[in-house]
Amino acid sequence: MKPTRSFASDNNAGVHPEILKAIAAANQGHVIGYGDDPYTQSAVRLFKQHFGDDTEVFFVFNGTAANSLSLKALTNSYHAVICAEAAHIYVDECGAPEKFTGCKLIPVAAKNGKLTVDAVRTAYHGIGDEHHVQPRVISITQATEVGTVYQSKEVQDLARFAHDHGMFLHVDGARIANAVAALGLGLKEATRDLGVDVLSFGATKNGALGAEAVVFFNPELAANFRFYRKQGMQLASKMRFIAAQFEALFTNDLWLTNARHANRMAQLLKRELSKIPEVKIIYNVEANGVFAQIPRKAIAKLQKRYFFYVWNESQSVVRLMCSWDTTVDDVKQFAEFVRRSV
Amino acid sequence: MKPTRSFASDNNAGVHPEILKAIAAANQGHVIGYGDDPYTQSAVRLFKQHFGDDTEVFFVFNGTAANSLSLKALTNSYHAVICAEAAHIYVDECGAPEKFTGCKLIPVAAKNGKLTVDAVRTAYHGIGDEHHVQPRVISITQATEVGTVYQSKEVQDLARFAHDHGMFLHVDGARIANAVAALGLGLKEATRDLGVDVLSFGATKNGALGAEAVVFFNPELAANFRFYRKQGMQLASKMRFIAAQFEALFTNDLWLTNARHANRMAQLLKRELSKIPEVKIIYNVEANGVFAQIPRKAIAKLQKRYFFYVWNESQSVVRLMCSWDTTVDDVKQFAEFVRRSV
Amino acid sequence: MKPTRSFASDNNAGVHPEILKAIAAANQGHVIGYGDDPYTQSAVRLFKQHFGDDTEVFFVFNGTAANSLSLKALTNSYHAVICAEAAHIYVDECGAPEKFTGCKLIPVAAKNGKLTVDAVRTAYHGIGDEHHVQPRVISITQATEVGTVYQSKEVQDLARFAHDHGMFLHVDGARIANAVAALGLGLKEATRDLGVDVLSFGATKNGALGAEAVVFFNPELAANFRFYRKQGMQLASKMRFIAAQFEALFTNDLWLTNARHANRMAQLLKRELSKIPEVKIIYNVEANGVFAQIPRKAIAKLQKRYFFYVWNESQSVVRLMCSWDTTVDDVKQFAEFVRRSV
Amino acid sequence: MKPTRSFASDNNAGVHPEILKAIAAANQGHVIGYGDDPYTQSAVRLFKQHFGDDTEVFFVFNGTAANSLSLKALTNSYHAVICAEAAHIYVDECGAPEKFTGCKLIPVAAKNGKLTVDAVRTAYHGIGDEHHVQPRVISITQATEVGTVYQSKEVQDLARFAHDHGMFLHVDGARIANAVAALGLGLKEATRDLGVDVLSFGATKNGALGAEAVVFFNPELAANFRFYRKQGMQLASKMRFIAAQFEALFTNDLWLTNARHANRMAQLLKRELSKIPEVKIIYNVEANGVFAQIPRKAIAKLQKRYFFYVWNESQSVVRLMCSWDTTVDDVKQFAEFVRRSV
Repeated sequence: MKPTRSFASDNNAGVHPEILKAIAAANQGHVIGYGDDPYTQSAVRLFKQHFGDDTEVFFVFNGTAANSLSLKALTNSYHAVICAEAAHIYVDECGAPEKFTGCKLIPVAAKNGKLTVDAVRTAYHGIGDEHHVQPRVISITQATEVGTVYQSKEVQDLARFAHDHGMFLHVDGARIANAVAALGLGLKEATRDLGVDVLSFGATKNGALGAEAVVFFNPELAANFRFYRKQGMQLASKMRFIAAQFEALFTNDLWLTNARHANRMAQLLKRELSKIPEVKIIYNVEANGVFAQIPRKAIAKLQKRYFFYVWNESQSVVRLMCSWDTTVDDVKQFAEFVRRSV
Repeated sequence: MKPTRSFASDNNAGVHPEILKAIAAANQGHVIGYGDDPYTQSAVRLFKQHFGDDTEVFFVFNGTAANSLSLKALTNSYHAVICAEAAHIYVDECGAPEKFTGCKLIPVAAKNGKLTVDAVRTAYHGIGDEHHVQPRVISITQATEVGTVYQSKEVQDLARFAHDHGMFLHVDGARIANAVAALGLGLKEATRDLGVDVLSFGATKNGALGAEAVVFFNPELAANFRFYRKQGMQLASKMRFIAAQFEALFTNDLWLTNARHANRMAQLLKRELSKIPEVKIIYNVEANGVFAQIPRKAIAKLQKRYFFYVWNESQSVVRLMCSWDTTVDDVKQFAEFVRRSV
Repeated sequence: MKPTRSFASDNNAGVHPEILKAIAAANQGHVIGYGDDPYTQSAVRLFKQHFGDDTEVFFVFNGTAANSLSLKALTNSYHAVICAEAAHIYVDECGAPEKFTGCKLIPVAAKNGKLTVDAVRTAYHGIGDEHHVQPRVISITQATEVGTVYQSKEVQDLARFAHDHGMFLHVDGARIANAVAALGLGLKEATRDLGVDVLSFGATKNGALGAEAVVFFNPELAANFRFYRKQGMQLASKMRFIAAQFEALFTNDLWLTNARHANRMAQLLKRELSKIPEVKIIYNVEANGVFAQIPRKAIAKLQKRYFFYVWNESQSVVRLMCSWDTTVDDVKQFAEFVRRSV
Repeated sequence: MKPTRSFASDNNAGVHPEILKAIAAANQGHVIGYGDDPYTQSAVRLFKQHFGDDTEVFFVFNGTAANSLSLKALTNSYHAVICAEAAHIYVDECGAPEKFTGCKLIPVAAKNGKLTVDAVRTAYHGIGDEHHVQPRVISITQATEVGTVYQSKEVQDLARFAHDHGMFLHVDGARIANAVAALGLGLKEATRDLGVDVLSFGATKNGALGAEAVVFFNPELAANFRFYRKQGMQLASKMRFIAAQFEALFTNDLWLTNARHANRMAQLLKRELSKIPEVKIIYNVEANGVFAQIPRKAIAKLQKRYFFYVWNESQSVVRLMCSWDTTVDDVKQFAEFVRRSV
């Protein structure tokens, strides 16, 4: 019998009950569409409370859009975006950022999934030369695609380099909650205060039904964003139901509870897998993902019962993601099954 | 005291309880993301049952996307889309179709919101001439933006003209349910059987939380669509919750019940307003919208209590939309308030 | 026997001998590519002399590019460009401006090919509403597509309206020389001094081999233009040979001599045709084009010997363009042939 | 005193006298614009003679366009183009290919500037997965950006891999003449017969004023190209003057004479520089470019007299290009000056 929950992705999990409750609670009578409603206003207020009063925030449907629209707000078509070669925006969006912005994304080698100033420097050239695209944004993913977390200093250094060179720092925060939980900081401390200019704030992977936000820490950058959002096909008519999800996430710090839980489960999974001699943990487990090298034959057996992704075929590395709803039993049963499979 | 429900738009209404229930019911355990789940498979099956086995259907977040992506699937960037000058895709999408397709939209004068073959012919020229964009799609809105409904023969004529001239017929069906209900036909009879090639199937205005579908009646046209959907930032990770909405709509013909009800309320509203001598109904009420000329001073009074849109400022015409949740009392109270305001 | 010269288009003419001579003269040794050469610097200087010291000018290959790139410099993708419904940018560029800018072009009815403030006003709405594209540029063609010329006051009024409403005034000057000659003003007086922001300065139709310029009267608007030019595939490597053409045109006012001559030939053609009772001149002949209604049967006969375009099939109106090389004999022979054909 | 000719780029050279003569010869009377003229027809015929009767050829203004439009003809926006990391289309076009096609370009490490099947394979993945862009074109530069030339077998292998995997092979032939001259093959043997699908045929660097062609060896791929050319702002009105340049190049094999000469001068330059112990030739000299490592201090001295580009700052490698007009004396004087400078 297949287990109810897998470790394939944090978006394979469903909706947290409190969030579903908030959606149902917002289902009262008529409200004006497209965001001019009290639910949206209230959710926006919560963002301002967490990130600062002059924060500008816009809700969109998914992460692809949060990222692509963020980049559009920061660029002209002849600009370039520097990112890690494993960045989601570079490898997993079917070219959506390029299509919507017209820009080139410049991939840069990144150890542990993290960009460094030195790495960025290799892509920062041709400035002022019209034959070259002009670097305009550094985009990092926090937590990274391989489950690591940028430390504050690392983000600050990238922000400083960006600003010193006429660029912006964008954060793909599909898992920003897990990163912030891991850092033990406040939301603002872990983003705006480090020099981040624009944040794609993810909620879907953290228990929402489908809700992402583009958060601007410089209101000027946001001046025309609502036009880009509409032209980018991302303006929800029944916006209140996206807003309600954020409202629920910010109530009693549900965002943090969910993220901490997922992170804790990842630590547990790491510990359990580490006990198996044939299994090797590949990246530091700093958020909610565990990347483990597992003997090829065992992977095949595992996949008969569990759905998950092989991250690196040739190295037989698998990606295991924990969610807000992963249980201790889920982890233990999976680890036990791995133990028996290897 | 403001009433709970307005006549501003069918998207100001909330979610039908059965649809919310279906969303909650789909919230069980983990399923694979991005549509490879049993809920999506089941909803797709229902579309095939209604529209034919070789129908290809793709779910997206909103109507802007359903339309823009439909057009992308049918065009190259040097093509043109012929539409009514009042078409939503032309006036209300902030240029999203142009941005995503690169195409020109050619607006054509349209009485009662309906394109005719004669009107289309005025925009069909420059064929084979590289200086001109090449007409490739006729796009109509069913029901139209002014509450009228194309009769079967009218759609057939446009489809025939399109196909005879190497073009496709696209239907913006944000309110296709209301149109089909009005025509008294089956979904397939009212679309595919009349020669429609691609349908933007709207659910959001018909009681869904946020769910639209792009429906292809020619599988070849759909061959690459999933890449356009992803690149168009419209691939939902937790797809099951969009699918569940369609499942609910097709269960016990909820789509039809909702649409019929809204249409009936529009008829009632028309009858009630017609009793007021100072009020003049402008367009035939054939779906769920009523366009009424109301003395300017009365409009101001009405807007203090009700939120709605003035459609034509200079002619003092207002747009009044009925929804799945509009009640007889809502209509009567509003009509009474109009009577007292004029 | 077919005559050597037709009245089909001013771009059917060849290159003025002085211009060809200048190209040959520039063919000395090596110079740096892409515009960093003395020929380009000299040509730019001449533009500054004519239009003002802080003018910024960029050379491109053709008119489609001059217009599309001008508009790109003035817009974001959610903006709109208001133009006459017969504007070349709207009907004759295969959607190039839309493709390169992402913007919608809004066609407006225009008597005699000329936009008016009243006409522009019909397209200026939805301001600040994210559902609508935002009007950002008024684009006029000078001389117009139907051979008329905006008077100074008409341009000023449009410029004032544009600037009062946060818009720019762009001039498609494919035939700016003919217009300026007709107005009897200086180049600067007829453009910059009237409030024009950006000018597509055409040379190809005025005796050049292939040379157009984008002229900015506000240097800030030009700040990033060279990147757009390169990304727009319009940066010539052997730029000196475009520059040399402008150099020749500005030497001894060749641009003016050519334009005046073509205009004069158009006046002669008008006079000669006016003598034929069956022929009717349709638009005021103010530049180098004559639009004449000619009996359908005569058109067929004429086309056996002369190549020209039927402008309006149903009204049997033909377009006859005079060039820098049209001779008095050409005109007289053609008029005589018309006389015999009707 | 600065010498008349430098080694900066083959586009710093002027126009071959025969080509200028051909332009002047085409300057007779009026011909129809936009390519419907006898000069263009004749030049097209010459291409067909060289490349095969069913070849389709289109003239454009420059190499950026020839490449970007070629790629557009082969792709949809969700496709990807695999190219060498040093490919001109990747590093030197200001993102023009991405902007016009919407596609991602995937850079691949390439020794000696040449792609190999093994290198291409590293970028060929995610096939059928909608999260990934879909590889559709392999684009190689012949001769390469570093002066090497693909051998026939190398091109064949890439073509076979492309075709076996549903891709096309595009050749950026800005210096195709130099490559063909080096290979000692016919034009068709060196391109079409090896499996190339589309060729950007460069003339500008080979003595033309400004003329490039897009050559399709599969007419189906060319079906809509003229619309892309117009929409891509690359349709010349006075096309005859581009055509005349090709006519001249194909007359008495001027293209080959020019290319052979430039190649020979590069060999001479290589030999002369090789005699200087402090100078090291970095890449095989196979076409008309020489890449030489020269002591940093000597470079500074050289640049006072000669204009050229430093290819690799940190390795003090300079790029030296020979042209159709480079003389033996030019080479000897330069080499002598290098000898004295080191």
